[in-house]
Amino acid sequence: MKKTALFPGSFDPYTNGHHDIVMRGLNIFDEIIISVGHNTSKKNRYFDIDFMVDKIKNTYKKNPSVKVIVYDELTSSLAKKHDAKYLLRGLRNTTDFEYENTISQMNRYLNDSLETVFLITTPKYAAISSTIIREVHKYGGNVNKFLPYKV
Amino acid sequence: MKKTALFPGSFDPYTNGHHDIVMRGLNIFDEIIISVGHNTSKKNRYFDIDFMVDKIKNTYKKNPSVKVIVYDELTSSLAKKHDAKYLLRGLRNTTDFEYENTISQMNRYLNDSLETVFLITTPKYAAISSTIIREVHKYGGNVNKFLPYKV
Amino acid sequence: MKKTALFPGSFDPYTNGHHDIVMRGLNIFDEIIISVGHNTSKKNRYFDIDFMVDKIKNTYKKNPSVKVIVYDELTSSLAKKHDAKYLLRGLRNTTDFEYENTISQMNRYLNDSLETVFLITTPKYAAISSTIIREVHKYGGNVNKFLPYKV
Amino acid sequence: MKKTALFPGSFDPYTNGHHDIVMRGLNIFDEIIISVGHNTSKKNRYFDIDFMVDKIKNTYKKNPSVKVIVYDELTSSLAKKHDAKYLLRGLRNTTDFEYENTISQMNRYLNDSLETVFLITTPKYAAISSTIIREVHKYGGNVNKFLPYKV
Amino acid sequence: MKKTALFPGSFDPYTNGHHDIVMRGLNIFDEIIISVGHNTSKKNRYFDIDFMVDKIKNTYKKNPSVKVIVYDELTSSLAKKHDAKYLLRGLRNTTDFEYENTISQMNRYLNDSLETVFLITTPKYAAISSTIIREVHKYGGNVNKFLPYKV
Amino acid sequence: MKKTALFPGSFDPYTNGHHDIVMRGLNIFDEIIISVGHNTSKKNRYFDIDFMVDKIKNTYKKNPSVKVIVYDELTSSLAKKHDAKYLLRGLRNTTDFEYENTISQMNRYLNDSLETVFLITTPKYAAISSTIIREVHKYGGNVNKFLPYKV
Repeated sequence: MKKTALFPGSFDPYTNGHHDIVMRGLNIFDEIIISVGHNTSKKNRYFDIDFMVDKIKNTYKKNPSVKVIVYDELTSSLAKKHDAKYLLRGLRNTTDFEYENTISQMNRYLNDSLETVFLITTPKYAAISSTIIREVHKYGGNVNKFLPYKV
Repeated sequence: MKKTALFPGSFDPYTNGHHDIVMRGLNIFDEIIISVGHNTSKKNRYFDIDFMVDKIKNTYKKNPSVKVIVYDELTSSLAKKHDAKYLLRGLRNTTDFEYENTISQMNRYLNDSLETVFLITTPKYAAISSTIIREVHKYGGNVNKFLPYKV
Repeated sequence: MKKTALFPGSFDPYTNGHHDIVMRGLNIFDEIIISVGHNTSKKNRYFDIDFMVDKIKNTYKKNPSVKVIVYDELTSSLAKKHDAKYLLRGLRNTTDFEYENTISQMNRYLNDSLETVFLITTPKYAAISSTIIREVHKYGGNVNKFLPYKV
Repeated sequence: MKKTALFPGSFDPYTNGHHDIVMRGLNIFDEIIISVGHNTSKKNRYFDIDFMVDKIKNTYKKNPSVKVIVYDELTSSLAKKHDAKYLLRGLRNTTDFEYENTISQMNRYLNDSLETVFLITTPKYAAISSTIIREVHKYGGNVNKFLPYKV
Repeated sequence: MKKTALFPGSFDPYTNGHHDIVMRGLNIFDEIIISVGHNTSKKNRYFDIDFMVDKIKNTYKKNPSVKVIVYDELTSSLAKKHDAKYLLRGLRNTTDFEYENTISQMNRYLNDSLETVFLITTPKYAAISSTIIREVHKYGGNVNKFLPYKV
Repeated sequence: MKKTALFPGSFDPYTNGHHDIVMRGLNIFDEIIISVGHNTSKKNRYFDIDFMVDKIKNTYKKNPSVKVIVYDELTSSLAKKHDAKYLLRGLRNTTDFEYENTISQMNRYLNDSLETVFLITTPKYAAISSTIIREVHKYGGNVNKFLPYKV
């Protein structure tokens, strides 16, 4: 049976850190669906969602195992809809761990066949957060070295 | 002398995790005052405050040792007003610990007879955060299993 | 009903940090039993156990609410024997938190009427660990300022 | 291609927490090799290694996807020998995270095709550590409820 | 060569905790430039920036090694402009550590001659956060004991 | 006045992570004294202390600002003896932070003119711990890529 994992996030923007997790995740799963969410607690995006989806799709255009979708629902429902039994998540540090611990338990409450699988981010990418990249970009800094595409 | 503890929070919503702490706290204190605050850094509530106060009051209607109030002042002043010498707080994880550590030291600076007493949240409730419940509820998910009342 | 708490530890040595927790704990409990354990994973004590028990007893000689005992059994059984429904523990930092979280859950499995109550160590005492005091003492440093008695 | 994961540890003893990770890991991997190590930094075992291997083998006797071996070499070499491209590890808390982060990076340095895959331990098992179980057992406590077999 | 360090922050308000770091930093650096930023992720200040800059300048008016500036650009660019090879930062707890770890790595990516130097906040000041002081001040509490000047 | 920092540790062995901190520390201090301790809580060294001192001395033989000594006393006394007003320490993660926080506060109690200055370890070196290197070396693995010299 095909093993499909969702890789959910707001990806504002999608970084080399995210790319690292997806490429390593492809050694575990047959298909990864990068799911770009309208995260309700982060009201306004910095990078336009269509722009970002295009960039991500282009990054994986030669890789048929990676799909990119936009969603606006609970991750646990999205997983059912796509017959995905796994969530793929990267862990950078203990702050991530505590946050992801809570989220993953909740997802299992809501959908008990949904398993969250974690990879620890490669150290050289662990400092690359979307929040900091937005800050750097806003002040005119060049952020291309942190992204698997150009902005 | 009656031992009264405040259990302050925004309770948006009040969860089984909060209920767990209050029920266990009743083995330590004679009276617990659940204090629903207008937390100034979280501007808008998701659940209406009057609705929430009703739900909490109803939860403890047969328990005269539990009171429910609304407040809009410093916790340290509120404690003095109610002759409460204790704050009761639950700890779920290290992120909570670092936050509560700071708050509790500040409260002692402001009111040196105020002691913060911590219980560690029962593991099965530790994944239940008000933030996640709001997210689930917003997308139409059933959150009743995480609450000691129905919404 | 009298509220009795155990305050278990190896107390090698008993420090101002421990003393801080006991004095504050007396505002919560009617009786605190300082329980000096032969912790099996720390084979040899640095300070003789009889010497230490004497020092602690002397510290509280005018305080009838504090008792000092030696034990060599599970804390959960010891609590039953002394009709203590509470364990009192201090938290200094996140490392303590993770350790105490595990221990306290286990104690509830073994004795479900046993509640562990935590106080966060007063900041000025949080750097005082028994391990460091042993190290300082071993090299001839004066450690009396970290202890509620003289060695 | 068959996906084989090592699940290395000293398993002194093997607990319900370990069992939880293996059972969930079987939804990700085709084969899991429980690898009972002679961890050099923990000199003496409490439970005899042959006894423990028997208990673990018996636990999975009806599950041909689970193998049990003893090893005394680097995990990264063991993985090559068994053609295992994955290490499976459970994370209980931030202390585990920091430790596993270091180990997993080192394993990738030593064997760059070796990916460590993490699952977060189910909350009700997160308090079950081998260290505490040894302590309880040593004092005559019944530890069978924490183990997937009887001792 | 003169060693100049930036001490960047939003300082809303500047606290005794910040003052502690600057005074200790003066034993390491020849000059410290307190850099009051318009942090883009914290939209509105509570204390007016000109008011705060005046208060900080006044605090160090007899100390020619301390300068105070306002900035609205990347810290890494600001450092180049002022020929500062160091950022000075205080660490209060593990949450600070994880945040600062990420920021400091990013700053080295953007300006590889920029070194971030950390001091751990003196325990008695570690509970003093600008966020809590704003909260206390807003409710009419006296915050002067937490500040090196009067408001 | 010459700024001298001690860089204390057991260095069993001295790694690229340690080397990274010393090289970066030389941009802050005029002289760094690598102080190889007989850490009393780690009874037996894996690498002979004379062998290690030779390797470290050789690493810095062209760098007159770096000295290497062996010591067997409190770090705070050692600092006085060498007129060192600073301790230099690397931080890899939150576990390090909690440990170093405690040690640094104690050192200031014992010697109030002693300031501990922290640098965060460069990510690619953060997984290199002396403990793991000993383990790898013991099993015949090649550890030279983790060290600034050959063993």
